[in-house]
Amino acid sequence: MQLKNLTQHIINKNSFLCVGLDTELKRLPKHLQQQPNAVLQFNKAIIDATKDYCVSYKINTAFYEAMGAKGWDIMEATLHYIPATHFSIADAKRGDIGNTAAQYARTFFEVYPFDAVTVAPYMGEDSIRPFLEYNQKVTIVLGLTSNKGSEDFEQLIVQETGGNSGAYSQKKLYEKVIEKVANWGTTEQLMFVVGATKTVEMKQIRSIVPEHFFLVPGVGAQGGNLNEVADFGWNKNIGLLVNASRSIIYADDTENFQITAAAAAATYQLIMQQILSQKLL
Amino acid sequence: MQLKNLTQHIINKNSFLCVGLDTELKRLPKHLQQQPNAVLQFNKAIIDATKDYCVSYKINTAFYEAMGAKGWDIMEATLHYIPATHFSIADAKRGDIGNTAAQYARTFFEVYPFDAVTVAPYMGEDSIRPFLEYNQKVTIVLGLTSNKGSEDFEQLIVQETGGNSGAYSQKKLYEKVIEKVANWGTTEQLMFVVGATKTVEMKQIRSIVPEHFFLVPGVGAQGGNLNEVADFGWNKNIGLLVNASRSIIYADDTENFQITAAAAAATYQLIMQQILSQKLL
Repeated sequence: MQLKNLTQHIINKNSFLCVGLDTELKRLPKHLQQQPNAVLQFNKAIIDATKDYCVSYKINTAFYEAMGAKGWDIMEATLHYIPATHFSIADAKRGDIGNTAAQYARTFFEVYPFDAVTVAPYMGEDSIRPFLEYNQKVTIVLGLTSNKGSEDFEQLIVQETGGNSGAYSQKKLYEKVIEKVANWGTTEQLMFVVGATKTVEMKQIRSIVPEHFFLVPGVGAQGGNLNEVADFGWNKNIGLLVNASRSIIYADDTENFQITAAAAAATYQLIMQQILSQKLL
Repeated sequence: MQLKNLTQHIINKNSFLCVGLDTELKRLPKHLQQQPNAVLQFNKAIIDATKDYCVSYKINTAFYEAMGAKGWDIMEATLHYIPATHFSIADAKRGDIGNTAAQYARTFFEVYPFDAVTVAPYMGEDSIRPFLEYNQKVTIVLGLTSNKGSEDFEQLIVQETGGNSGAYSQKKLYEKVIEKVANWGTTEQLMFVVGATKTVEMKQIRSIVPEHFFLVPGVGAQGGNLNEVADFGWNKNIGLLVNASRSIIYADDTENFQITAAAAAATYQLIMQQILSQKLL
């Protein structure tokens, strides 16, 4: 799916939920752990259970890499099981110089045909450009993340150099990142990661990039509030894709896990439906 | 190999060269491209040809990921072919929140038992801590990279907040990153990436972290000068591991590629031997 179709898809499904498949063998329901291909079975069961309540799936590549080569086969099989109606994201947070970045882009846009991939901005424009050359795909750049560590560097105040007057503006690093990266591609090619725990900052970020979609992790297990996210991050295209991972997929470790995961996803969806009905009045 | 043994290894080998295995099927010698397992064959041939001239190998994970699951098997077989006497680096530039970073650490320290992995700092302390929990392993954090894009964010001037006096110091982001990250682990656990094209800045970085080893990419294909790197980056433990990838492994695409790669590595080694003999007088 392309990003330009996401808004309509959200309206049709009454949901802007992305389900994160951070799947780890040891956290699966006990009865599944012993079975062959347990992780893939689990992912398929979660997708079956939640697909009516979400518009997107996000595969956290770290959990698949930690299984070695077979993890990549499981990731591939999971990707192919995600319905074509759903926006598929590789949460890989890659970032390297140009010729290496081109390999990463090829990996997540061609070898594994995801709709989108997450990318880290530290190394600058030539580390992001190779992803943007795939103009039917979506590059999701880290802006302000939901973790404590975002204070260490993302929230530092940076000073703009240049200008003969000696005048300078002050911004936080994540604001500078978002402002600058937004110029490198279209609103249909670029999204930003903005943590759900950072609602006050989200309002400010929305003023910098009024038209971009945000990928918002950090609701559920990380504690972000869905109504606040909607109040601060909303835009005319809705502009929000909210991810929940552990609070859905690990909601229950018994044989009833599918029903409980469906219920957890449905709970998010219901809140989102209320938000959508208010905002789209 | 642990980092504390690297200095002695460099002295023994008269070399501080790391050979980067950024191996890509289409760039291999034509006669190899058609053969089964060409990439692994090539890597083994390059390791055989260069191991006397270098102390380390760096596997650029992007090139293996782009081959899909079988790429990870090739990476694993290559890793196991690297002599135990050589310092093995996964150039993966990972970075994510804590529970995800723990998966990445497990991938590159346990599932694939590299000596070291490169990590991106953008997301802060909790994205780096899980790597440092492996105290026999080495975490190599991006400082100042050799690419043009390093100007976009790494070189921004950041302002320290805090202090009642209103006084503040100004540093560049990469300086702040290096200064802060250096407090999170020991000099035997942490290294920094400092690009070879950034020799003036390298001198300044050396004053911030006088005791750390630097991984220095960007000589050869990217144009950095080895003598300048030694002048500005040297420390009492030598403190430099200089990587060359394309200028060695793709020095020749004929059937003589092994001899030419050996010669290219030997050329670096000879310059390094001269530098070592001067500096260790």
